[in-house]
Amino acid sequence: MNIWDEITKPSLLLSERIAKTNIQKMADKAKRHHLSFRPHFKTHQSASIGEWFREIGVEKIAVSSIEMAAYFQKHGWKDIAVAFPINLREIDRINALATKCTLSVLVSAEGVSKRLSEMAQHSLGVWLEIDTGYGRSGFPDNGLAAILNEIKMIDAAENLHFKGLLIHNGHSYKCKGQSEIKGVHEASIKRLRILKKELQTAGVSNFEISLGDTPTCAVAENFDGIDEIRPGNFIFYDLTQASIGSCALTDIAVVLACPVVAVYPARNQLVVHGGGVHLSKDSLQSSGHISYGRVVLPTGELWNICPPSAFVSSISQEHGILSMPAEMLQNIQVGDILGILPVHSCMTADLMRGYYLLEKSSAKKWLPMMKAEALHP
Amino acid sequence: MNIWDEITKPSLLLSERIAKTNIQKMADKAKRHHLSFRPHFKTHQSASIGEWFREIGVEKIAVSSIEMAAYFQKHGWKDIAVAFPINLREIDRINALATKCTLSVLVSAEGVSKRLSEMAQHSLGVWLEIDTGYGRSGFPDNGLAAILNEIKMIDAAENLHFKGLLIHNGHSYKCKGQSEIKGVHEASIKRLRILKKELQTAGVSNFEISLGDTPTCAVAENFDGIDEIRPGNFIFYDLTQASIGSCALTDIAVVLACPVVAVYPARNQLVVHGGGVHLSKDSLQSSGHISYGRVVLPTGELWNICPPSAFVSSISQEHGILSMPAEMLQNIQVGDILGILPVHSCMTADLMRGYYLLEKSSAKKWLPMMKAEALHP
Repeated sequence: MNIWDEITKPSLLLSERIAKTNIQKMADKAKRHHLSFRPHFKTHQSASIGEWFREIGVEKIAVSSIEMAAYFQKHGWKDIAVAFPINLREIDRINALATKCTLSVLVSAEGVSKRLSEMAQHSLGVWLEIDTGYGRSGFPDNGLAAILNEIKMIDAAENLHFKGLLIHNGHSYKCKGQSEIKGVHEASIKRLRILKKELQTAGVSNFEISLGDTPTCAVAENFDGIDEIRPGNFIFYDLTQASIGSCALTDIAVVLACPVVAVYPARNQLVVHGGGVHLSKDSLQSSGHISYGRVVLPTGELWNICPPSAFVSSISQEHGILSMPAEMLQNIQVGDILGILPVHSCMTADLMRGYYLLEKSSAKKWLPMMKAEALHP
Repeated sequence: MNIWDEITKPSLLLSERIAKTNIQKMADKAKRHHLSFRPHFKTHQSASIGEWFREIGVEKIAVSSIEMAAYFQKHGWKDIAVAFPINLREIDRINALATKCTLSVLVSAEGVSKRLSEMAQHSLGVWLEIDTGYGRSGFPDNGLAAILNEIKMIDAAENLHFKGLLIHNGHSYKCKGQSEIKGVHEASIKRLRILKKELQTAGVSNFEISLGDTPTCAVAENFDGIDEIRPGNFIFYDLTQASIGSCALTDIAVVLACPVVAVYPARNQLVVHGGGVHLSKDSLQSSGHISYGRVVLPTGELWNICPPSAFVSSISQEHGILSMPAEMLQNIQVGDILGILPVHSCMTADLMRGYYLLEKSSAKKWLPMMKAEALHP
């Protein structure tokens, strides 16, 4: 008996061994480069999994909402950065939380620090988000005047203190291969070094630079000028990370176990219970087709990854349509369980609200995440 | 004070008035065409909203999982069809539920009825899913031998009884305009009439034909040969339905309220808290761009729909990037609330786990859905 045999409905399985290896590797890399390690917990969103980081000495974390910050504070985390543009409408919750832990927030647009300074009732660290090319949020790195003005507002405020510059190079997700990722990274840190020098010339010193995305944190070896890394996805990785070169397929730590509900030999397809409400609708272009996931076969405490010709070719709310070669299909029948490697593990985990540990097969062990703490599936 | 003013984080707002109008219109249409009305509850997944249907006399429902069937049975529904290919691994739950209500299940591939007949311990209605062109799941409508063989297995089983043919014309979602939708529908019912005649010739009578998708149920006026309609999305509708012609934009009953967290006049963009974990990653091609939602402005108990040039142009886990004309952007600042009409309301509702009623503004009223019954946000 193993966990696969116990599955009756779409369930997210987690290899504790692979996830812990991914954590250790990233922690080792941070140490090797003398970087502070502030993992982003938005990917796993689970207090239990947070403990795996604490066990190896991690003390600082990043999250993507005040709700998530409050959840992890409740679970004993004391230094929390909310690495999402501050939502001023949540100021009451922010003020309450700031009395309970070392809280830092993110300012991503002009004028926000001024307004925050009028609302903050307790000590708050403030990061300025810098956009070095992604184009999602943050001050353009070449906008020194606006950045200096914002720092001035922070310095003038009684309860705010300037933490530093925070960057998320999300455009690394559009790369193909490690040299492109390194290219994005090198361009970004070059721009950050220029900005850092400009700020120092203007009299701003004593601040940190925090870098965020998994692809560059996984692949880059030059962190000149960077003080902290803040990757999140690396704990699980996924098909997107594998396709851009941040990880190997065997580094992926989560798989969605899905019951087979219909087999269509004439179409070389089968249908599983496992759709957009489980995997998310994230897709990627792979070997000339759109893929919503890749198929794996259960092997007791892990899985075997099938060739790329076995993939999720289409998805709706609860249905996953899997295409695969006839010789593979003929060995599968209704009632079997297949696994799907997710395209985007953060989204899949958020939807599934928790994990079953693969290596704890004798007792089906459920690790809930934030949004499901009160609910057992 | 209205509900919009109370919003501090991404929240799904529901207009009870619009939703009830949508329900009444579809119920009236079913009555006008002498069709049995079995609404699909996978869109709202809420016992409270289910009551709105009960109030106007609805007694039969469709759902998309055993879990959802059990939830609605617990809330007093007595005739439930699980309109998703039966998952044999859940047979224990199915058998338990069959003792508590009139339960019918769906068989979508060859050989499943035989296996089900060996596992069913209580009376179960069985629908056969027929594929008249969508290509997702079901028996091809031209495969009479396979269909007859399946019916034979059902008839021979002690606990199974044949309910009829169930069709979901999901390819209507690829239509543009009402005449294309009607084209899909006419082709489908023509094929169903042929199959019905073939079955009758082979001695199979006394069965129903149940039709499922919102576009055809909303638009078609010819239901010749059809006994039951089973639409789900129509209660809320969404941008996808509006774009294919099933509804007007003003028929959309849900909107995601999102706090503005950064404004970028130089880019004609702003950022809201509201991303893929709230809206889903569903998108549509509109006016030459990819859109993840359309912007609306709060107006007390409802909203004003902005021109199509104000839309969600990009989305990540928690961020929504909204593009809009400069003259609109200049009136919006960080801390404001905007609304987003979802591309796919079923997915958005599933993610948000519940609704705030817009018209009940004095007391912020939360209607939880199945997955959040035990959790209050």
